[in-house]
Amino acid sequence: MTAFTIEARDGACDARAGVLATAHGDVRTPAFVPLATKATVKGLLPAEVAALGYEMVLGNTFHLLLNPGPELIERFGGIGGFMGWDGPIVTDSGGFQVFSMGHGTVAEEIKSSQAGAGGRAGAILAIEEDGVRFRSYVDGRERFLSPEGSMATQAALGSDLALVFDECTPFNVDRDYTQRSTERTHRWLERCLGWHAEHGPEGQLVYGIVQGGVYEDLRRESTSTVAASACDGVAIGGSLGAEKAQMYEVVGYATRELGGEYERKPRHLLGIGEVDDLIRGVELGIDTFDCAMPTRLGRHGTALVPDPENRWRVDLKKARWRESEESLLEGCECPACADGLSRAYLSYLARAGELTGARLLTMHNLAFLATLMKDLRAGILDGDLENVAREWRAGGFRSER
Amino acid sequence: MTAFTIEARDGACDARAGVLATAHGDVRTPAFVPLATKATVKGLLPAEVAALGYEMVLGNTFHLLLNPGPELIERFGGIGGFMGWDGPIVTDSGGFQVFSMGHGTVAEEIKSSQAGAGGRAGAILAIEEDGVRFRSYVDGRERFLSPEGSMATQAALGSDLALVFDECTPFNVDRDYTQRSTERTHRWLERCLGWHAEHGPEGQLVYGIVQGGVYEDLRRESTSTVAASACDGVAIGGSLGAEKAQMYEVVGYATRELGGEYERKPRHLLGIGEVDDLIRGVELGIDTFDCAMPTRLGRHGTALVPDPENRWRVDLKKARWRESEESLLEGCECPACADGLSRAYLSYLARAGELTGARLLTMHNLAFLATLMKDLRAGILDGDLENVAREWRAGGFRSER
Repeated sequence: MTAFTIEARDGACDARAGVLATAHGDVRTPAFVPLATKATVKGLLPAEVAALGYEMVLGNTFHLLLNPGPELIERFGGIGGFMGWDGPIVTDSGGFQVFSMGHGTVAEEIKSSQAGAGGRAGAILAIEEDGVRFRSYVDGRERFLSPEGSMATQAALGSDLALVFDECTPFNVDRDYTQRSTERTHRWLERCLGWHAEHGPEGQLVYGIVQGGVYEDLRRESTSTVAASACDGVAIGGSLGAEKAQMYEVVGYATRELGGEYERKPRHLLGIGEVDDLIRGVELGIDTFDCAMPTRLGRHGTALVPDPENRWRVDLKKARWRESEESLLEGCECPACADGLSRAYLSYLARAGELTGARLLTMHNLAFLATLMKDLRAGILDGDLENVAREWRAGGFRSER
Repeated sequence: MTAFTIEARDGACDARAGVLATAHGDVRTPAFVPLATKATVKGLLPAEVAALGYEMVLGNTFHLLLNPGPELIERFGGIGGFMGWDGPIVTDSGGFQVFSMGHGTVAEEIKSSQAGAGGRAGAILAIEEDGVRFRSYVDGRERFLSPEGSMATQAALGSDLALVFDECTPFNVDRDYTQRSTERTHRWLERCLGWHAEHGPEGQLVYGIVQGGVYEDLRRESTSTVAASACDGVAIGGSLGAEKAQMYEVVGYATRELGGEYERKPRHLLGIGEVDDLIRGVELGIDTFDCAMPTRLGRHGTALVPDPENRWRVDLKKARWRESEESLLEGCECPACADGLSRAYLSYLARAGELTGARLLTMHNLAFLATLMKDLRAGILDGDLENVAREWRAGGFRSER
């Protein structure tokens, strides 16, 4: 298993800079992975995503299973051929989305995006040992997703990197439920790997998913179970706690189990993308991240800026930007900043709900995170991660490293 | 008055190829002018519009007056500075939008685009000799637009080419109303020109607007009145009839009056952009056109293709394209076609309401019309317009001329 090469280590917790080799090319890590949930990074063309500095995108098994369906996408050579992206693609397993329907997160997201298209909210019908029965939000039909079904779908979607099907343990459950759920996730891991060994596409890597909620022993046990399996990499999922301090602690439970013989397995942190979380995640030895945050915020008028006191965010819809001649961020190379567009114009576009505004801020936010990840990587390679991290945390914005 | 240079003439009705010189550069004609209604071509960046082959865009005085307001835009050096477009800009006068509120067209458009933003429909309150009183769809406030107010707004918007404020005579009114309305439009023309002579920005050209409904004598009289005024160019507006044959006849009433001493005044046809209408318009001696059609159709999943029997349109949302591996249009240089994206993918994006779909089809449709206009221009320059027009009407698609 030589998919992942570690080029350098730095920092107290062994942050790593590396190269993840996939069937469609290399991904330099640490890296943020933008979402191409429904086979497109919303509003952007593949060439634009690449020009922003990204080497891999993440497609969503759950959504693509329901529409347009894996059979169609397979006919086009997978998500990449379908959407015209010729770089690496990771697909999540659908577990997170299926289970989120039970407690609302995804249902809400779906409702808001489908409101105009006659969509109906999906619903989880039954969680069984064999898999999950749910109602499609696309056509209301009853559907079933199992570990094998998820892997077969991801095989058809042709991703370079598949995630195993897990139960995404919710936040508000007790230790007992978490334990039973995590054990099922481990049984599903073996079923996924079994299916993949027999039927998986050549060259497709498989990541196991660590669960265990916020309980140290469960997290550690889950991590070592996943790491010891035949998976190519390890993804950290599920509830990471109620606040950032706990999240870092929980991620640390996992990464500490991943040293030694498991060190060469690449590590992905699922659904995390805030600036300070990315910095800490990298420090803790995470290699890749995905998150809806930068693209979703962009569509809703919020831009990422070097302002730690405001969570690195500025809401351009606010009245204070209405007349601002200030550009968004000096030194940023996204089209909005490079062209010197004013905050007043971006604010106006966002408030007017103009597509161009969504697009400009999406590109800006992705450019911002690409710069961050490039800097962190350079910091590790230079043995200077501590300073890079400190500067970003203090509100720096660097792109010359 | 040397803003417009005629390079060549061709065809029975003196089609013209020319160059319109503006304060922000030249526009080669005949040309289609994409809408940047609210200071953006929806979903596209200025550089992308230029790359598609466009030299001028059209901003909307009515919408920009209400939001974000001319004072703000003026502070950024006009629409161009505000949106980052450094080429020529034409602004309409707001007359069409204000008067459309009386009979629904614009109100409907506003309602659909503002539904999610808490918008309220505007309403016309009174049409007086001095101007028009209406209720803003943005904030519900009562507003007033007069010929002088429209020109002052367009001065603040910093357009290269302003249109005078006219009453856009509706379709379903009698000859008597049409005549009285047209006479008022002529009085407003003089007021606009008077205001502009005294206060207008240097280098801003002014087009008068021909009204007169479908009545030959009123159209001809309106045309000669406008042409004889101090305006720099002539725009043809108002109701052009119930069907294409009548539209061509009515446009012909106007263009036949524009020969001889008025020949050097450039001619714009307002709100017309279907493929066959553009061809006929060029044949009749029209120099520039604007229309929401290509961009609006694109946002709604319809692409322009060389298919005269279906009005040069294909609705990609239809089930028949769901699995189509066919590309949109061979030889087209838009990103969707150049990258060989399938109709299946474009259909999927359009049905899913994805921003990327709106954007790809907007670019395709603009690329299609840019190719048409380039071909028609080349045809005139080569003395071969008849053949170019015949080929396009027969479903040809050329880009090598």
